[in-house]
Amino acid sequence: MPRSTLYQLVASELRRAIYSGALRPGDQLPTEVELMGIHQVSRNTVRLALGELVNEGLITRTPRRGTVVRERRPLLIHPQRELQPQPEETKEAFAWAVSQEGRVPSQHIEVAIVQPAEEIASRLELADDEFAVVRRRLRFVDGQPYNTNDSYFPLSLVADSEIARPGDITRGANRVLTELGHRQVRMVDDIWARMPNTSETHRLQLQSGTPVVVYIRVGYDEGDTPVRVAVSVLPADKHLIRYELESR
Amino acid sequence: MPRSTLYQLVASELRRAIYSGALRPGDQLPTEVELMGIHQVSRNTVRLALGELVNEGLITRTPRRGTVVRERRPLLIHPQRELQPQPEETKEAFAWAVSQEGRVPSQHIEVAIVQPAEEIASRLELADDEFAVVRRRLRFVDGQPYNTNDSYFPLSLVADSEIARPGDITRGANRVLTELGHRQVRMVDDIWARMPNTSETHRLQLQSGTPVVVYIRVGYDEGDTPVRVAVSVLPADKHLIRYELESR
Repeated sequence: MPRSTLYQLVASELRRAIYSGALRPGDQLPTEVELMGIHQVSRNTVRLALGELVNEGLITRTPRRGTVVRERRPLLIHPQRELQPQPEETKEAFAWAVSQEGRVPSQHIEVAIVQPAEEIASRLELADDEFAVVRRRLRFVDGQPYNTNDSYFPLSLVADSEIARPGDITRGANRVLTELGHRQVRMVDDIWARMPNTSETHRLQLQSGTPVVVYIRVGYDEGDTPVRVAVSVLPADKHLIRYELESR
Repeated sequence: MPRSTLYQLVASELRRAIYSGALRPGDQLPTEVELMGIHQVSRNTVRLALGELVNEGLITRTPRRGTVVRERRPLLIHPQRELQPQPEETKEAFAWAVSQEGRVPSQHIEVAIVQPAEEIASRLELADDEFAVVRRRLRFVDGQPYNTNDSYFPLSLVADSEIARPGDITRGANRVLTELGHRQVRMVDDIWARMPNTSETHRLQLQSGTPVVVYIRVGYDEGDTPVRVAVSVLPADKHLIRYELESR
């Protein structure tokens, strides 16, 4: 059996133990020497197998604590919920999703008027001299930084509204847009991933080797004018995006 | 001005040049010394700025070729298309999307009967002793490996069909499922990202530091039985997933 197959076999047995719950978050794996004995393989094979699981975000290896199953409580994001009719008292979507899981949401908000970067300006269809209001949020779950969400709105549309003023909008910016006559009726979601930049690594306290999912949503009103561009940066080990589609 | 802000400013100017097309894929960036002069900053600041852009997948740095704008032709994935009524002659979705862009799709297929890993078995709601047929595809665009797509089907449903036989199914496995009386009417899509494992890095010829997006689709028939689990591994620098949603 070639070596590549052998280490993959060991990796797959460990992976199964983690997925099945036999090894739980925070549990320590056997040492390299113990794994060599259990699987009757060389140290090199053990190391290759463990490397796979590190890459997949399942375990972390540190000199002091050894090899440990990673804490994984990904937050489930349901992008479709924002388009469903919401009861009057509904909280903003993130706060709602987190509370549903019995966890405590919080956030820092910063509001600014900016000339957004090309990738935002083009999505908002802004002219060169047009400004946007950005509401930049760093979001926490149980006090831990979880993700960032920067929402951009054309200044011309929202200048006189709560959206352009600092501080939280309890009923959500989407409802304010609706009140302004720009209810979003269509959304286009772009999703990809990349490695975080230095500032993201720092703000989101990312472990090294953790990619981020970038999720950009553009909301269009009934006149098909883009009224909001929301950029979420979601550390990949803590988030899962789920869409549910039905044939019409 | 603190150093962190300064290098981000330089990074942002370079980023803008790339997004606007002033710097095009394959173009060489000025040298570190030239950038120090242009932006009136230290070498360290230049290096921090370039590091950001490497992290974002915008540029690559090699000792021989210097700093070069990365080739980025992400393939646009439209997960909703699979649920739309398709004309009789429609090609399989990947082949179709690639042809639409004037590029040439091809693939290697491997068909096997397996006891799938926990994460697949649970989604297919298989009992412990039940098997699945897996159709493993490595897909190419213009001859370059692009992504993998492994589709699992309960063996009990597809044992006597083309799905369980080696080789391509020109009209797509979804149509075969429909012919078998298991048309998929509901899909649940889970999307996250992680670093690739060794085998993926090799098969997909990934540059180091390129995460992969994992996209798992479960298709349910009219009786709400899961009839297909499709796992796509999409190198993050080459793919963009796009959903379009409308309020009902």
